[in-house]
Amino acid sequence: MTRIGRVFRIVSASPDPALLFFSSRYSSSSPRATARLLRVGDVLRESRRFSESDVARFSEISGDHNPIHLDDGFARDIGCFDRGRVVHGMLVASLFSSIIASHVPGSVYVSQTLKFISPVYIGDEVLAEVEATYLREHKKRYIVKFTSKCSTNGGGSLVIGGETTAILPTLILLDRKNLD
Amino acid sequence: MTRIGRVFRIVSASPDPALLFFSSRYSSSSPRATARLLRVGDVLRESRRFSESDVARFSEISGDHNPIHLDDGFARDIGCFDRGRVVHGMLVASLFSSIIASHVPGSVYVSQTLKFISPVYIGDEVLAEVEATYLREHKKRYIVKFTSKCSTNGGGSLVIGGETTAILPTLILLDRKNLD
Repeated sequence: MTRIGRVFRIVSASPDPALLFFSSRYSSSSPRATARLLRVGDVLRESRRFSESDVARFSEISGDHNPIHLDDGFARDIGCFDRGRVVHGMLVASLFSSIIASHVPGSVYVSQTLKFISPVYIGDEVLAEVEATYLREHKKRYIVKFTSKCSTNGGGSLVIGGETTAILPTLILLDRKNLD
Repeated sequence: MTRIGRVFRIVSASPDPALLFFSSRYSSSSPRATARLLRVGDVLRESRRFSESDVARFSEISGDHNPIHLDDGFARDIGCFDRGRVVHGMLVASLFSSIIASHVPGSVYVSQTLKFISPVYIGDEVLAEVEATYLREHKKRYIVKFTSKCSTNGGGSLVIGGETTAILPTLILLDRKNLD
């Protein structure tokens, strides 16, 4: 399933100024050795487990104290969540922008659609993936659309589906920890 | 603009079991005196300022370390954010589910659309509003659609627009701190 495009070595004598800007601040290694260009069909992904502490802290920051996130008994009694309290959907869905930003710092969110299909329980391993489906240069930036999904059970159970649109300052993907 | 429906006193000898369930756990006052029923056209709202600490903590929890949220110089240089670093869009947008859950604990998110129109800077006062536009009973629960928006400048500048769909266990709005 790994569909990251092939590696492009940056050989121009005048590399993209955005890359130099990013690499000078956010990368300790030479971008020339690791940079890849985003293309339609590329999938960027990240796995993550949300802890009790993550959920409690997100409740504090967001102000969302819905007991389905904080009270196992309540969550079970409500009839939807047989394994108890669930992770906030918006916290899980924040993985989409997190993935994009980890590969292209300076990306700016334009829009997001989200369907919350199944619950994510505390401790579940969530696989988040964004696949580039459309890419257009516009005023020295790039408008990129992605299909976005989160799944559990090793990718077998879709929990969130949607679409993400972002403006990227460059198509160069930094070789960072979240790069598949 | 306050369009919360009129107050309904609950006079039935057999009040909604969901209300009793919620009130026994989450309200110190009698629900009979304060309950209101959600109707199409009702607007629920909340004001909020996000601090540097909120943004830093959200970065940690979500893993979204995009420097547009953490580095004033980067945010300005990128050309979109003249006042420096901005609050994560997903953190601001989490106000929608937070508002709904504060009025109806046990609400479950079904879907969300989001258009990120303008940035929210740290310290900006954000007014978040959800307006019920559709309401249908389904298997003793309620499917409710809302138009959702966040604005700054006293409501004058739209920053996020979208739609929210949630399943509510009851239409009774708890008289909590966020009730307008």
